[in-house]
Amino acid sequence: MLDFQKLSADYQQALLGQVVPFWLKHSLDAPYGGYFDLLSGKGEVIEGDKFVHLQAQQIWAFAWLYNTLDAQPAWLDHARHGATFLSQFAHDDRLNCYAILDRRGRPVAPASDVIPDSFTVMAYAQLHQATAEDEWAMLAKQLFANLLNRHEVDREQQAQAVGDFRKLRYLNEPLAMLRAALGMQPLLDEEFYKATIERILHELLREFLDRRTDTLREFILPEGSFINTPEGRRLNVGLTFQTASALLDLCAESGNRKLAMQVVAWCLRLCEQAWDEATGGLNQYVDMKNQPFIFPDWQQKWAWVQLEAIAALMKGYFQTRHPDCPTWFKRIHDNTFATFVDTRHLGWHLALDQNNHPLLPAKAIPAVGCYSLIRCLAETAQALTRCGQLQPLGRHIRVGASPLS
Amino acid sequence: MLDFQKLSADYQQALLGQVVPFWLKHSLDAPYGGYFDLLSGKGEVIEGDKFVHLQAQQIWAFAWLYNTLDAQPAWLDHARHGATFLSQFAHDDRLNCYAILDRRGRPVAPASDVIPDSFTVMAYAQLHQATAEDEWAMLAKQLFANLLNRHEVDREQQAQAVGDFRKLRYLNEPLAMLRAALGMQPLLDEEFYKATIERILHELLREFLDRRTDTLREFILPEGSFINTPEGRRLNVGLTFQTASALLDLCAESGNRKLAMQVVAWCLRLCEQAWDEATGGLNQYVDMKNQPFIFPDWQQKWAWVQLEAIAALMKGYFQTRHPDCPTWFKRIHDNTFATFVDTRHLGWHLALDQNNHPLLPAKAIPAVGCYSLIRCLAETAQALTRCGQLQPLGRHIRVGASPLS
Repeated sequence: MLDFQKLSADYQQALLGQVVPFWLKHSLDAPYGGYFDLLSGKGEVIEGDKFVHLQAQQIWAFAWLYNTLDAQPAWLDHARHGATFLSQFAHDDRLNCYAILDRRGRPVAPASDVIPDSFTVMAYAQLHQATAEDEWAMLAKQLFANLLNRHEVDREQQAQAVGDFRKLRYLNEPLAMLRAALGMQPLLDEEFYKATIERILHELLREFLDRRTDTLREFILPEGSFINTPEGRRLNVGLTFQTASALLDLCAESGNRKLAMQVVAWCLRLCEQAWDEATGGLNQYVDMKNQPFIFPDWQQKWAWVQLEAIAALMKGYFQTRHPDCPTWFKRIHDNTFATFVDTRHLGWHLALDQNNHPLLPAKAIPAVGCYSLIRCLAETAQALTRCGQLQPLGRHIRVGASPLS
Repeated sequence: MLDFQKLSADYQQALLGQVVPFWLKHSLDAPYGGYFDLLSGKGEVIEGDKFVHLQAQQIWAFAWLYNTLDAQPAWLDHARHGATFLSQFAHDDRLNCYAILDRRGRPVAPASDVIPDSFTVMAYAQLHQATAEDEWAMLAKQLFANLLNRHEVDREQQAQAVGDFRKLRYLNEPLAMLRAALGMQPLLDEEFYKATIERILHELLREFLDRRTDTLREFILPEGSFINTPEGRRLNVGLTFQTASALLDLCAESGNRKLAMQVVAWCLRLCEQAWDEATGGLNQYVDMKNQPFIFPDWQQKWAWVQLEAIAALMKGYFQTRHPDCPTWFKRIHDNTFATFVDTRHLGWHLALDQNNHPLLPAKAIPAVGCYSLIRCLAETAQALTRCGQLQPLGRHIRVGASPLS
């Protein structure tokens, strides 16, 4: 039986009692500005660089909590602290983002894709919504225009470059752009917003989606051709759920129920393919053609992957009422709350090995920060509350009749 | 007690009974030339690209076995099959190597360092030694001249680029160049050979080596400055033993006993730092400042890392007679032969998880081919035989008095 209100309270408790306090307490770099992006399991600073997309994700997460959950001044202060640093150091004179800065903000590496720019746009837009300060809106608009332009030029060049080296396109780019566009909606002219969303949807649903198998691929050749290598055959579980989640947000806004049904079908199939019967939890990758894996990290269980799945399943359930959503939700939920919660320190374990022990003595690394954790816990709490409200009083969804449980 | 002759026979058996047959049987791509670089645990082909450095390593390994162990025509044929493919497809008109080719040999990615060129030089030089055919010597000389030149230009540009993005230098470049230079010795003018070795030694021992702590670092800033990030603090266990092994070969040739003692001291300290008490085996990395790890693969146990350690320790013992070498050798040897040997199929397991189960259903991946396996098994067998010959008859080295065993 799913008790939506009780479950929603569990997600709120994980968010506000465990995850948010970890970041508020440990990540702030008071002397130099911005956040420490590398933190140990206990929250100690691991010396290293600052990653523009992680800084931006943390700004976004705290401004978004302030805007959508509770207007706590500490959350806004935390977000503003990061945004002040980013606006000073993260972009060059023409408002194109760097990828990596050192602790003091000096550029270490240029951006090779639109990821840092996309998250920076989201951060500034969210902070503008929280403060109504023009500065953030202006920065967001200019950065967004730049990144759309750069992405389009890249696509054209790739499509025209015949006989050149192979160019792979990566799912995380249109995904980050979709999130950025959704965040920019209040700041954009309606027609331009719609055209931008259309362009990104075309890329996702006509190029990255293999329409024969209805499968969202991680890497494609320009214009969507398949490449029969381990990368080309790879489905990235976390990234697919993240994309599903963003598309479901779009469906909720536009009322596109057909797309919501399609996205939920991806999610359910991916659960079947990626679930690890031996240890519980979702693996990182699936090979479209079931060839043996060559990626040494394929069976690692990452908290962000489980949470992206949970959030997508619960949003998908709210929109489609597909009966397999709560079944898979419960299965992943039970495993996740049994294994990833750190019972001794604030924060969640980042990843687990085959014994369900923490893979790393760290809770924040260049590959993963607070973004999925905070967003998915909050989104799931909200979706669960809504599901509870829809339900006739006194009835719970039964989980257990399905062969899965 | 170390029974050198018995141990040497074990290494020969692993080499000739398990590892060499796996590659001879499974890796050859008869229709398109070259080798399949991705193979499953049973030896099935995993579809994908061809990696120039892996192709070159396999050519080198089989030509080297032919030259040093036993002149088996099948080994020479196997090497020549790969070299024919490489000489046709691996380099451009100016004899600079690509990094990746597709199955048919079409270039997929350019080289970003001198690694593919260095191993291709080694492959051609070894094949020239086996066949006395001029073609391979000419190719090797031209490629070697090109890569030395490119590396020097890179170094100068990096040292001069003030205010630019951070440039890290990576230990595997001077290591690959040292191996290439050692392999090219018969083809080079003596003075030029000596000057080249001196330049590479300067880079390794004056730049990559942190002389205060006598520690070989994996990443440095141009001219050897330390960078306090997880990469800058990282010691790469396998790469350090591989470097130690190449330096010990140089010491054996030049009679530099002082350097041999120094290198053996690195090896023994690294064993202490990297040994995993819980599972046995050497971890992949050590943090120079003992900060928590952010690399999710740090505790994976890779066969090539264990074997590079074993080979370096046994060569080091032969040259220095340091009593801790056989102690650590035995410890790593016992663990390696108990866990990495595949009792059901040809070949060794590539890597193990925390339960000492195979991490991957593959035995050949882009990161690791046959190079360390074949070279280290053969070198260790040879070093053990030599140690056995040096020893007074009837006496065995006692291992067990040390607190380690």
